[in-house]
Amino acid sequence: MLRVSRLYPKSRVGRALATTKRYQSSVCGAYFPDEPSRPELITERIPGPSGIKLNEDLGKVFDNRASNFVTDYFNSIGNYISDADGNKLLDVYCQISSIALGYNNPALIEMAKSDSMINALVNRPALACFPSIDYGKILNEGILAAAPPGMDKVWTALSGSCANETAYKAAFMYQEAKRRGSIDFTSEELTSVMENKAPGASEKVILSFDKGFHGRLFGSLSTTRSKAIHKLDIPAFPWPKAPFPQLKYPLDEFVNENHSEEERCLAILEDIITKKHPPHNIAAIVVEPVQSEGGDVHATPFFFQGLRDLTKKHEILMIVDEVQTGIGATGKFWAHEHWNLSEPPDMVSFSKKFQAAGFYFTDPELQPNKPFRQFNTWCGDPSKALIAKSIYQEISKNNLVQKTAQVGDYLYKSLSSVFSKYPDRIKNLRGENMGTFIAWDCVSPEERNKLLLACRTKGVNIGGCGEVTVRLRPTLVFENKHADVLANILEDSLKDLYK
Amino acid sequence: MLRVSRLYPKSRVGRALATTKRYQSSVCGAYFPDEPSRPELITERIPGPSGIKLNEDLGKVFDNRASNFVTDYFNSIGNYISDADGNKLLDVYCQISSIALGYNNPALIEMAKSDSMINALVNRPALACFPSIDYGKILNEGILAAAPPGMDKVWTALSGSCANETAYKAAFMYQEAKRRGSIDFTSEELTSVMENKAPGASEKVILSFDKGFHGRLFGSLSTTRSKAIHKLDIPAFPWPKAPFPQLKYPLDEFVNENHSEEERCLAILEDIITKKHPPHNIAAIVVEPVQSEGGDVHATPFFFQGLRDLTKKHEILMIVDEVQTGIGATGKFWAHEHWNLSEPPDMVSFSKKFQAAGFYFTDPELQPNKPFRQFNTWCGDPSKALIAKSIYQEISKNNLVQKTAQVGDYLYKSLSSVFSKYPDRIKNLRGENMGTFIAWDCVSPEERNKLLLACRTKGVNIGGCGEVTVRLRPTLVFENKHADVLANILEDSLKDLYK
Repeated sequence: MLRVSRLYPKSRVGRALATTKRYQSSVCGAYFPDEPSRPELITERIPGPSGIKLNEDLGKVFDNRASNFVTDYFNSIGNYISDADGNKLLDVYCQISSIALGYNNPALIEMAKSDSMINALVNRPALACFPSIDYGKILNEGILAAAPPGMDKVWTALSGSCANETAYKAAFMYQEAKRRGSIDFTSEELTSVMENKAPGASEKVILSFDKGFHGRLFGSLSTTRSKAIHKLDIPAFPWPKAPFPQLKYPLDEFVNENHSEEERCLAILEDIITKKHPPHNIAAIVVEPVQSEGGDVHATPFFFQGLRDLTKKHEILMIVDEVQTGIGATGKFWAHEHWNLSEPPDMVSFSKKFQAAGFYFTDPELQPNKPFRQFNTWCGDPSKALIAKSIYQEISKNNLVQKTAQVGDYLYKSLSSVFSKYPDRIKNLRGENMGTFIAWDCVSPEERNKLLLACRTKGVNIGGCGEVTVRLRPTLVFENKHADVLANILEDSLKDLYK
Repeated sequence: MLRVSRLYPKSRVGRALATTKRYQSSVCGAYFPDEPSRPELITERIPGPSGIKLNEDLGKVFDNRASNFVTDYFNSIGNYISDADGNKLLDVYCQISSIALGYNNPALIEMAKSDSMINALVNRPALACFPSIDYGKILNEGILAAAPPGMDKVWTALSGSCANETAYKAAFMYQEAKRRGSIDFTSEELTSVMENKAPGASEKVILSFDKGFHGRLFGSLSTTRSKAIHKLDIPAFPWPKAPFPQLKYPLDEFVNENHSEEERCLAILEDIITKKHPPHNIAAIVVEPVQSEGGDVHATPFFFQGLRDLTKKHEILMIVDEVQTGIGATGKFWAHEHWNLSEPPDMVSFSKKFQAAGFYFTDPELQPNKPFRQFNTWCGDPSKALIAKSIYQEISKNNLVQKTAQVGDYLYKSLSSVFSKYPDRIKNLRGENMGTFIAWDCVSPEERNKLLLACRTKGVNIGGCGEVTVRLRPTLVFENKHADVLANILEDSLKDLYK
């Protein structure tokens, strides 16, 4: 592949990094001097013939029926994703919210070429048994430097699902240890657990919210409530759910109604805690700051403050799932920083934009009382922790959270203006003051899918969620010029669809 | 870190690879011309002062209470692991069976420096939605080229636990689809599943074996039966277990007894299937070729042939968990190749020595009937698939499976000779004709732990499993010269302990 060897020579990296210092006004321009200024379309439809052929071949060995298009990552750059036929699309979906700094970011390329990375890749450690001499430093300079306010410890994992599941395990062990007091496991616990039975296997539960999404392994899937297709035929724990507020938009027109809705949900939740479950039966409540797969469902800080207060009152742990909201996209590094809670959450899980995964916590009791209880072979991955460190340092150095808040405001205003012409087609624009974490509803799944396809055909890669929602998940180097391209193509697409 | 920049310059890689071609007699010598010929000990105890300090610091932010010693991976080489104080130990534990080709293998360093790797690291894809142009090729040349006989498809995951859990999900979806026939989901299924209830949530089960280990997330942990400490306080599915044969050693002295024991276990299993469960209630049976965490418990091909026949007869899927046994260590690429089954297993899971994880299968019906059912954001990791490809190609090119079979025979004979002097202290030497997958029992956990510590103090890093077992898990470039060092140090340790 000739083009590959053009992409990663030493000189290219040096140039791009030096440029960063000169043009502080556009971080994206400094990182990606060759980024296209608009989509470049080659084939009439996307995927084109090369992409279709490659996808057919891959499908013989790997389940790729969810494929949007086969992607040429070597030729993707900044905010533009290239498909196998050379089409370059503005990407506001970004690998389901996972690309933080744009494709082929020079700082990440530099990290990928570093001795630390080579070492981490070729000598993958069993981190809890044979931690590497540099793991503490890597964590402290990256994942932990980025920790939410009030949190100073981390358990590293490999995906959002296992980040949440290890957090759930920590919650069960914590709550059962509290119940047990200072005594050790009983012989009945030791024998019953080998039969998968109580009292050794906990009968406590994790409560999640209707439409929440927390992953797809067996424990996390039991807390996932997004869509039936995610859950059908998979055994589930009998864990409860509570309603999540359904706000009306625009928010400033429905202040009282929305407040009542959030009070209603909090009251139902307290009923579930106190009347439908024995005391201390709920080990933890897990919640997303914005329910993402469920359809970008927002609540106000009032709801989350109430949730924190209820969990403290009833000695339930509060786990904030920031797998999709974390790392800057909402205009705060962590979305829950928008809430002004009386106390920090007990655990905050992360993945996606950090590439690394895991959960943060502070209370030392969330480390189980014995070693080898929260444990597995790898316990994380130093190569991913190194990437997370670079991502954090670039975000910090270039003020990308603050810049994302600003471009989000600009984008929200542009979209408001475009959508004001289609009040019967586009509804519930949301995410004001939430960075680029913006979404809206179409009137039906069919209309939504038509809009997504129209955008793709015009050169914007964009994603849906829920039943009728379009969600934006651009990088943190998405700037006003990209917002203009997006708004123009959305306007053109709407014109075409509803002319 | 000065030493780092000495380790990975371009020239070093080139030299080591060229050397490989010249000295075919010792693959290890060609890869690692600078590998020590024996352990090099600097501090009186391991960990030494630097390791203790680094571990204390790391412990403030990360649960490292299971730490054996902090490791300097930069200075580890081939079969020798270096700790933070510069001690170099012969490593026959290898990150809990995860290091295939030795530390700092030049072929892996070359792969780590490649453009494909840099691309995979900085542009991590959501593989099922936006597969990379090269993912099919990477799979076909690596993970799939290594597929067990009769298997031609793969689902990629991130760890042994999620490899097994995605295999379980495939099993549940397959069996429920068979039950359902050609009809679509009922409305009752669609609503009940959102409440985590049947019929939408399956009530079928996965059967596993007593002392089996299949991971530590909620589904995999429900099939794990190794030790109470792995399971305590974590909710579990009410899934059944069956007894696993307990063989007597030496095998040739107990042929009839062992045969009866395996018949007994198969009869109990058929009883569980036919009398303790409704028909078709058991979706799959998961089994390790050698129960590893459970104490290196072996069974003969007769048992596994019987298991395959029973699963076919009762339409139960057979999942072989090769997370620890796979990729060459038993003298076959896959341990289940020792069995001569009437038909291949339905799924085979892998991880550890491949760095990449997932499960193999053949039946296209094991792909769910709709997309987005077996799905998550990343669906694997191309950077790990690239490492797996290099590992496979080196194993293949250098005949490392065959060589491991040979060195295993040599090692087994050496150990037999050493242990024959301590018949009251060392029992049940096992793993003959199983490559280097060798283990033995001590007479108590205390004696076992003393032996492990004595070996470490003399320069061998070695691991336990079960209650009283020592297991060997060297690399695939472990040769007769390393076997001699190991046998000598074991003999010295036993002399010291039992003089």
